[in-house]
Amino acid sequence: MNTGRRGFFGRSLAAGGIAALAAQHPKIAAASGGLDGKPLEVPDWTKMLGPGVTAAPYGAPSEFEKDVVRRNVPWLTVSEQASINFTPLQDLDGIITPSGLCFERHHGGVPAIEPDLHRLVIHGMVRQPLIFTMSDLVRFPSVSRIHFLECPANGGMEWKGAQMAGVQFSHGMVHCCEWTGVRLSTLLEEAGVAPAAKWLLAEGADAAAMTRSIPLDKALDDVIVAYSQNGERIRPEQGYPLRLIVPGWEGNVQVKWLRRLKLGERPWQHREETSKYTDLMPDGKARQFTFVQEANSVITAPCPEKPLKAKGFCEIRGIAWSGRGKISRVDVSLDGGANWQTAELQTPVLDKCLTRFRLPSRWQGGPVFLQSRAIDETGYVQPTIEQLRQVRGVNSVYHKNSIHTWRVNQDGSVDNVQVL
Amino acid sequence: MNTGRRGFFGRSLAAGGIAALAAQHPKIAAASGGLDGKPLEVPDWTKMLGPGVTAAPYGAPSEFEKDVVRRNVPWLTVSEQASINFTPLQDLDGIITPSGLCFERHHGGVPAIEPDLHRLVIHGMVRQPLIFTMSDLVRFPSVSRIHFLECPANGGMEWKGAQMAGVQFSHGMVHCCEWTGVRLSTLLEEAGVAPAAKWLLAEGADAAAMTRSIPLDKALDDVIVAYSQNGERIRPEQGYPLRLIVPGWEGNVQVKWLRRLKLGERPWQHREETSKYTDLMPDGKARQFTFVQEANSVITAPCPEKPLKAKGFCEIRGIAWSGRGKISRVDVSLDGGANWQTAELQTPVLDKCLTRFRLPSRWQGGPVFLQSRAIDETGYVQPTIEQLRQVRGVNSVYHKNSIHTWRVNQDGSVDNVQVL
Repeated sequence: MNTGRRGFFGRSLAAGGIAALAAQHPKIAAASGGLDGKPLEVPDWTKMLGPGVTAAPYGAPSEFEKDVVRRNVPWLTVSEQASINFTPLQDLDGIITPSGLCFERHHGGVPAIEPDLHRLVIHGMVRQPLIFTMSDLVRFPSVSRIHFLECPANGGMEWKGAQMAGVQFSHGMVHCCEWTGVRLSTLLEEAGVAPAAKWLLAEGADAAAMTRSIPLDKALDDVIVAYSQNGERIRPEQGYPLRLIVPGWEGNVQVKWLRRLKLGERPWQHREETSKYTDLMPDGKARQFTFVQEANSVITAPCPEKPLKAKGFCEIRGIAWSGRGKISRVDVSLDGGANWQTAELQTPVLDKCLTRFRLPSRWQGGPVFLQSRAIDETGYVQPTIEQLRQVRGVNSVYHKNSIHTWRVNQDGSVDNVQVL
Repeated sequence: MNTGRRGFFGRSLAAGGIAALAAQHPKIAAASGGLDGKPLEVPDWTKMLGPGVTAAPYGAPSEFEKDVVRRNVPWLTVSEQASINFTPLQDLDGIITPSGLCFERHHGGVPAIEPDLHRLVIHGMVRQPLIFTMSDLVRFPSVSRIHFLECPANGGMEWKGAQMAGVQFSHGMVHCCEWTGVRLSTLLEEAGVAPAAKWLLAEGADAAAMTRSIPLDKALDDVIVAYSQNGERIRPEQGYPLRLIVPGWEGNVQVKWLRRLKLGERPWQHREETSKYTDLMPDGKARQFTFVQEANSVITAPCPEKPLKAKGFCEIRGIAWSGRGKISRVDVSLDGGANWQTAELQTPVLDKCLTRFRLPSRWQGGPVFLQSRAIDETGYVQPTIEQLRQVRGVNSVYHKNSIHTWRVNQDGSVDNVQVL
């Protein structure tokens, strides 16, 4: 591939091409018409009135987009109530993930919570225990932030070399939404945190009663008790009516269906921070409380689900993110990491938020080993898989953020491979 | 009202309140439990497994949010295929409008376009007429931008003093989405625009074959031929599969179901820029091509649909926008415009994008005349209704962007009034 920005497709799009297309499909002739001075022909859908403004009080995607859905991997878990499905990153543009396509990770399925009956309790080492209704919470000073949210198991199946079928499964446990709610610090100030309190337990109202311990420093920093996602109330599978948003930290601590916050002196050592969500190191010890999702990135076009269909101009597109702050640079390699070019970042580049990157390129038809490498504002550089394995071994499931490789084959198909 | 940020609700939220609540509704006791050292009781929804990860490949809002929908005004138009429905601004937070709730304005209903058969034609005064398939367009260099989009008739029913029932109908012909597509300038460069060409005709593939003339200067500036809205392909009612995004300009020129772009020397004087979408001035002449949506704002909480339910702390929230660039300041008045306070703007403040503003306040129970006033980066100040009428008279329908007034009554209800 060579990069180049001008004369993208030469003559291939010119009007003369229409005759061949029309021969293949009569509807195309009607849709496009000629350009040789005659009026353009009128397609069928222009000849009839469509549905009006009462047809869809709440809209839905086109029926032609029915394959753009979350997908799960049936063999991955024993039950689908304690399982995962994946965001179809291969079909998405920009940085906002539509709420209906945000990956799901549940531990006991989605509870059907009546918002008028839902309560948030703050107790433990506080001056004044408090109970909040949803109406109470909405009255407090609010804040809106666009943040990515990633399951720490994203990519985890590839630690030992398994190659998932495409980008939906290799990287699709991430989404990015605008969240609105109350700063947790505001609520904690209302309750009055005891000076000796250093940790906070967050509990969900799902059947798993999912709990995680969170350091108070982070809780007082940028954590949001959120009731809104992408403008409207949070979707049921994302925590309706209330979710803890812990920007940049692993999704598991961003407790959904938030029901209880308890202040204490030390972590509670519950299931999800002992037997799960720890990193088993080469020496057999497990690292605990490795909360931050380090810088990561992946190319979403081309990818296994979106092969190259023609030689010539190709815009390489992808997403990058870092739990430590803003993405400062993304490099792209076409030769498996030997040489790198700097991609363009779509502005605004936001804190702990997906960042869309793009690199104009040109595919000559030969094999290409495509990689992206994210660098965040702290200077952290996304590692190679060897670098990650040198430190972490091969027993981990969580926090695999290594540079990913797509092999573009001569026929334009794309495979998920590891370059070592 | 007095502003104040601390001790928002005093003791009213304390744990002692739970007994009275529980007496009213036994489920609340189960949901909340006690705080006096006993374990919290467990609500019903925590006692059963919920749906798993295959339940909703494409998600939807909670059933408890079923009243958060677009609404139309049946008497407003003769047919619902050439009509309007309104964004429920009273229910939204942040700046992103969920795609399913973006207002609709159609002139011939929603066409059911097959994307594989859809074509975009560029012709007229060009070196090389071109026909693009959707696959062609997606291959070009892409750009993503978050922009508001407003129908110029937003608020138009209030020119002569009619007061709509609430903010959904008074200001709900605006939404804000992340759009991704190809810069129009890129496609025009490919076609080669003739030096004498100064205007462009954009045509939709709907049953109205909606057309508008757009100056070439704007077309070459920041216009996008968009295929994606809030991350996924554009919704049918918003122009699937292709829409012209003309940032900051009236919605009517942001042609949906975009099928044809013709270059020419002068505007085409079609129906939607002669008998419609003009401003009838006091002298009987009609202003044409008043494209820009000037700075505007409205308070969305409280509003007629969201009355105040209790005295004390109240965060006044609203949205502001300007077709000329960024919002630089929003002022809020509690006394019908006599005194003003500066609201906080949620960052990032983006170009031609909704901007969320907030002002902490305190309601003492008396009547309040709430107003907001937007100022944009050009120094333009949102006018009063008298200032607007002095220039424009009372015969206009479009481009009513005057300061809006909500009267908060002693019982907390909110009315739409005009303060003269």
